[in-house]
Amino acid sequence: MSYGDCFGLWRQAAGQDWHDYTHHGFVEALRDGSLPRESFLHYLKQDYLFLVHFARAWALAVTKAGTIGEMRACAATCSALIDGEMQLHVKSCAAEGVDEASLAATTERVENIAYTRYVLDAGHSGDFLELLAALAPCVLGYGEIGTRLMENAENTPYRDWIETYGGPDYQKSCARAGALIDDAVRRRLGDTPENSPGWQVLCDRFTTATRLEVGFWQMAATP
Amino acid sequence: MSYGDCFGLWRQAAGQDWHDYTHHGFVEALRDGSLPRESFLHYLKQDYLFLVHFARAWALAVTKAGTIGEMRACAATCSALIDGEMQLHVKSCAAEGVDEASLAATTERVENIAYTRYVLDAGHSGDFLELLAALAPCVLGYGEIGTRLMENAENTPYRDWIETYGGPDYQKSCARAGALIDDAVRRRLGDTPENSPGWQVLCDRFTTATRLEVGFWQMAATP
Amino acid sequence: MSYGDCFGLWRQAAGQDWHDYTHHGFVEALRDGSLPRESFLHYLKQDYLFLVHFARAWALAVTKAGTIGEMRACAATCSALIDGEMQLHVKSCAAEGVDEASLAATTERVENIAYTRYVLDAGHSGDFLELLAALAPCVLGYGEIGTRLMENAENTPYRDWIETYGGPDYQKSCARAGALIDDAVRRRLGDTPENSPGWQVLCDRFTTATRLEVGFWQMAATP
Amino acid sequence: MSYGDCFGLWRQAAGQDWHDYTHHGFVEALRDGSLPRESFLHYLKQDYLFLVHFARAWALAVTKAGTIGEMRACAATCSALIDGEMQLHVKSCAAEGVDEASLAATTERVENIAYTRYVLDAGHSGDFLELLAALAPCVLGYGEIGTRLMENAENTPYRDWIETYGGPDYQKSCARAGALIDDAVRRRLGDTPENSPGWQVLCDRFTTATRLEVGFWQMAATP
Repeated sequence: MSYGDCFGLWRQAAGQDWHDYTHHGFVEALRDGSLPRESFLHYLKQDYLFLVHFARAWALAVTKAGTIGEMRACAATCSALIDGEMQLHVKSCAAEGVDEASLAATTERVENIAYTRYVLDAGHSGDFLELLAALAPCVLGYGEIGTRLMENAENTPYRDWIETYGGPDYQKSCARAGALIDDAVRRRLGDTPENSPGWQVLCDRFTTATRLEVGFWQMAATP
Repeated sequence: MSYGDCFGLWRQAAGQDWHDYTHHGFVEALRDGSLPRESFLHYLKQDYLFLVHFARAWALAVTKAGTIGEMRACAATCSALIDGEMQLHVKSCAAEGVDEASLAATTERVENIAYTRYVLDAGHSGDFLELLAALAPCVLGYGEIGTRLMENAENTPYRDWIETYGGPDYQKSCARAGALIDDAVRRRLGDTPENSPGWQVLCDRFTTATRLEVGFWQMAATP
Repeated sequence: MSYGDCFGLWRQAAGQDWHDYTHHGFVEALRDGSLPRESFLHYLKQDYLFLVHFARAWALAVTKAGTIGEMRACAATCSALIDGEMQLHVKSCAAEGVDEASLAATTERVENIAYTRYVLDAGHSGDFLELLAALAPCVLGYGEIGTRLMENAENTPYRDWIETYGGPDYQKSCARAGALIDDAVRRRLGDTPENSPGWQVLCDRFTTATRLEVGFWQMAATP
Repeated sequence: MSYGDCFGLWRQAAGQDWHDYTHHGFVEALRDGSLPRESFLHYLKQDYLFLVHFARAWALAVTKAGTIGEMRACAATCSALIDGEMQLHVKSCAAEGVDEASLAATTERVENIAYTRYVLDAGHSGDFLELLAALAPCVLGYGEIGTRLMENAENTPYRDWIETYGGPDYQKSCARAGALIDDAVRRRLGDTPENSPGWQVLCDRFTTATRLEVGFWQMAATP
């Protein structure tokens, strides 16, 4: 459950916000199975739209990468979102009688717009690192939540969701993302990045994105 | 109070959302003077941050313009926001004991982030017209609100605010913005733009930005 | 060798520039085998750098797409460039004793910079269609050149290159790109896009990119 | 003729390229009056197009700035280019019988496209500093050239041009740009920015832009 040095430091800098995100009531309701089906379906629909823009943000990262390796890693994540994670949502929603056209036509809630467009703007206004710092809380936070829920879940109908994020495939992708971040930061800020004046900007990006995750769960809990 | 043909059509397409924005309880409380001072100060602080990113969006429009005239109009609006409207907020806040450093250090609320980053993304993902359509509700809606409140305001401590947006300078800038939009649309979509397949996208951008204005007032009303 | 309706019209609009590009002396020298090895190696090195930025431009297209299908198509092309076409160059250069680090450290020639950054700017300043119009001459022109050289090549050491672009895999990707363009244009400009005021902008983007292809061959011919 | 610490270091890093730019044959021909009128007019027309995209790049800088002061400085430069420097070109060209519509319709030469789109891409792919480093050679190099030619010009018909860039107004704007750069770099990279791993990237941006200036002069010398 350790996804690299930078993640550890950024997570610490986010403090209570990180805990509020990873232990949100919505997460606990997935864990103990108390989440109403209606809320889960509402979450899936909003999350589908989230993933559209999150995939766009990983594509933006390709345009801001500094090495072929960085380009390849970001392009692979973008494709994995479009062809993998989004298709899981399509399948889950289809099982509930919601087809992909309805999914794509869902009205984006304000908290959803805020999060994805913030991440995209972090990329457009800043550099590759600022974009990675804004992308990290979702990618790695879901990994952390998945791991914890794998261990602690009760008798819950949301076991599929938990195994998606707590399972070995997603955990491997978190390890890769963490290594991408550590390498990218080291290349640009040196071996003690926390001493660079730019470090605080990265912590701020990570913390704001974490705060927007909390807002997303809150929105998800209120269909 | 007519700011051009496109505005008229977009406003109509936004329907009830436009009314909810321009007649929001926050606006009515400015009009009749019932708005708590604390809410107004909170609004000014969030609106200062809004203007930072709104000025960035007008600068983005310069990079997407198709003629020197379009570039000049957008650059002038960007400068007017930085040197004019933002300075009014600085002055108003100073009078309440809040200096510019505190203003800039205010934590952005989610509804604020959602609105400005949505506008910026409309520009990055689309063309000049999509950006203008997302910029229009704020610029022209404030003009419409100002005009109405100039006529109907009661004994209110917020007369300065009303006269800023209802007064001749701001109204002239609205007329210019409306003409910029009409010219830009005609140049790209022809004389009956509403028959172009791209028209609906512009209506959607305008309506979503209007919906985000409603969220902004709601946030402003809850310090 | 027909890659869709828009390509046919854009190609026609580019006129003599299209012929100058697809029948350039460099191409003829690949066909008849008279191209000096040194020029070919120089071309491969510059083209490797070209592909880096061309992949970035296809990633930018993902951020500007309007449907999941458009996103998927652009992301797949981006990945195919990074994992496929660029690796062919790496392999070809390795066979000549030039490793990937040397490739990446090659100094970009002015004509190369002009072309790729023009394409990227077409995307940043315009919409998805403007970007596609600037991407099309390279993708589809190579398909056309490959097809012609498959039929007409003489005894040439550059048969591998010819078979890469004239072969069925690349031809299929050209057919897909042509269909992506036709669908994207129809969705945004309707069934008679050439009557839209925005059509000329697309022709201009295509023609300028074609002109920059001519410059690229010229540069390739002078190591 | 000193425009700040970073400029001094970047200029040194550019080495011979900086000399080739600031002492190019085109510059010497302005100085001694031997430049053919036709070349000068050709230069003015291409430079007009250059300024269009250079103003766009300064607008992009507004969207990437980190403080209100940085936003204001970049917005002011953008406006000064549109309303000042470009109008000088319009006036000079009008005196030669070339109106603004013809100016805007000039076909951009490859070297011109390469330079401006490279600067824009430095902004889109990097952060505020990378964009400033790519903007600096033009702004400050013209200041340095103007200063030198003020001292050494012979009997030349291009005295107006020399006085524009060697005169106090332009020199003041160079001093401001140099200070903007030093402040921006210090804020992001600390007091010894040359020890930061990111420093080399800035030197590379500056040097490549300088190299593209050399190409621009070469193009200007060949109508």
